[in-house]
Amino acid sequence: MTTQTNRQWRLAQRPQGPVSDENFDLVEEAVSEARDGQALVRVHYLSMDPTIRGWMQHDTYLPKIEEGAVIRGLGVGEVVASNSDRYTVGDLVSGLTGWQEYVIADSGRNRLQVLPAGTDPLDAVGLFGPTGLAAYFGLLDVGRPAEGETVLVSGAAGATGSVAGQIARIKGCRVVGTAGSDDKCAMVVDEYGFDACINYRSEDLRGRVREACPDGIDVFFDNVGGDILEVALNNLALHARVVICGAISQYDGTPPHGPRNYMQLVVRRARMEGFLVFDHTSRYPDAIADLARWAAEGAIRHRVDVVEGIEQVPAAFQRLFTGDNVGKNAVRLV
Amino acid sequence: MTTQTNRQWRLAQRPQGPVSDENFDLVEEAVSEARDGQALVRVHYLSMDPTIRGWMQHDTYLPKIEEGAVIRGLGVGEVVASNSDRYTVGDLVSGLTGWQEYVIADSGRNRLQVLPAGTDPLDAVGLFGPTGLAAYFGLLDVGRPAEGETVLVSGAAGATGSVAGQIARIKGCRVVGTAGSDDKCAMVVDEYGFDACINYRSEDLRGRVREACPDGIDVFFDNVGGDILEVALNNLALHARVVICGAISQYDGTPPHGPRNYMQLVVRRARMEGFLVFDHTSRYPDAIADLARWAAEGAIRHRVDVVEGIEQVPAAFQRLFTGDNVGKNAVRLV
Repeated sequence: MTTQTNRQWRLAQRPQGPVSDENFDLVEEAVSEARDGQALVRVHYLSMDPTIRGWMQHDTYLPKIEEGAVIRGLGVGEVVASNSDRYTVGDLVSGLTGWQEYVIADSGRNRLQVLPAGTDPLDAVGLFGPTGLAAYFGLLDVGRPAEGETVLVSGAAGATGSVAGQIARIKGCRVVGTAGSDDKCAMVVDEYGFDACINYRSEDLRGRVREACPDGIDVFFDNVGGDILEVALNNLALHARVVICGAISQYDGTPPHGPRNYMQLVVRRARMEGFLVFDHTSRYPDAIADLARWAAEGAIRHRVDVVEGIEQVPAAFQRLFTGDNVGKNAVRLV
Repeated sequence: MTTQTNRQWRLAQRPQGPVSDENFDLVEEAVSEARDGQALVRVHYLSMDPTIRGWMQHDTYLPKIEEGAVIRGLGVGEVVASNSDRYTVGDLVSGLTGWQEYVIADSGRNRLQVLPAGTDPLDAVGLFGPTGLAAYFGLLDVGRPAEGETVLVSGAAGATGSVAGQIARIKGCRVVGTAGSDDKCAMVVDEYGFDACINYRSEDLRGRVREACPDGIDVFFDNVGGDILEVALNNLALHARVVICGAISQYDGTPPHGPRNYMQLVVRRARMEGFLVFDHTSRYPDAIADLARWAAEGAIRHRVDVVEGIEQVPAAFQRLFTGDNVGKNAVRLV
């Protein structure tokens, strides 16, 4: 085992503008040995998440990634050697594995979560991973939709937006999405059951949001930021909730665009609130139980867009920002 | 009575940029007679409020003021004739009197609030008026400060900010203000008892906020918008509350400046929320009782900056935006 190599993607150069291949270096090193209290994990899937773009550039809710360090990222893997009571060989684990083939887990800073036996690793990356859980906690805890309310979701074809909208539908809301192509919009309506979906690239966003949400927006679940945030703010219902989950339109390093009409929060007595899924770890089991039940009942559908091979990681990651992926974006390593 | 004249300020021209004398027309008309169900009110004080700037330009939480109409505004007056069960001659009343010397009150759309006997009309404009009540409901209901937390108040020398900060102090918070001159800052600290006040014109706002709020800002009560909102967002404590009360720096008609760093709401799991004092009318009596008790105990001090004469109204109103007034800005008509 220790003679094997561990391929890793490291931060070569901090991005200023859009992410490109120059920001990443593929490095090989020997696989580490699991010392006392540690386990060695073989990573099976890496989760491609827009928030990593922020980590590459500056301090956010986590310190920025150091230049030369392995890219911080979520993954799912299997324990292949263990000198820890916490991990048993064969356990499926998830957490911040980093963009690499092997990782050392311990019970401290490098702790990974042991998943229940029988978990599908793709579910662990997707529906039960941080994007699915962000949809769950963001919509239910922050958005608090009530039956009959109107929920607008930006990035509705994405890993988080598609799940957020489907949960809103389960809660009896009218659900409208936005996405970047007619194919995505068709999927959002036909497969995810949204009441309507607006192609923000080809349609009149302002007019279509007004038309699709005639009584105003009670909950806006935002993954995108920029124009759609301003349009949504201009169409809020009284006492609306704006759930700030992401701002993928603003992650290219250019000076971000703040919502010029934020005073609509006063006009509509509304709130705009951010959250992080990592604050809710103690409730993950309940959330996963709900999501699993809804998925089993067919009330939630979920797509994982899998690319094969660690060499493909930078390209897969860049597709998050071009709108070319559909659903959850993941890379399969084994 | 009916042969007397009623001088009124009307909207001559909708402002695009900063408000100027050209936006207003002083018109005289005969005083109306109180018909069945109506009362005639002689207006004593007009309350100068920044929100009127918004009403002059566009629809907000109220429809915009029509060109040629009397400027909508809050006032306090005395009932001088009544054909209504609701009003008795001698009653002190407050509400949307408009910028005029006389107004007809009824029990419908033109209803005014009858104030308890013995109310000081200046208190009715100031501490117990919409600015004082905005401080009360905004800070306590939206900001929900806890003992030991840090509260930052922009526009701390103003009618709302000074009261918001003093209530925060009563609740056991560390209170920091911002104001536009050294004299105002001295007043904020010495008279209103804030722990610190930052002169945003002469000091390094970014550095001083960080220094004065070393554990981060738990509640930001914003009357100003623009730079201070961005600086505050960059210094939020976890789970902070940003109370959007006003944005006086953004009311000059130029394209407003949205907070480019609103994603700090995610980083800090914080919320930004707007409110309107008019939503809380049923709780005004409780709020006024609290404010009156605190004022009687000396825990809240309040200044009203009174200008004499209806001719002075446009000038008094414009002083709101130049930072030349201190405390509540009002015009005395009688």
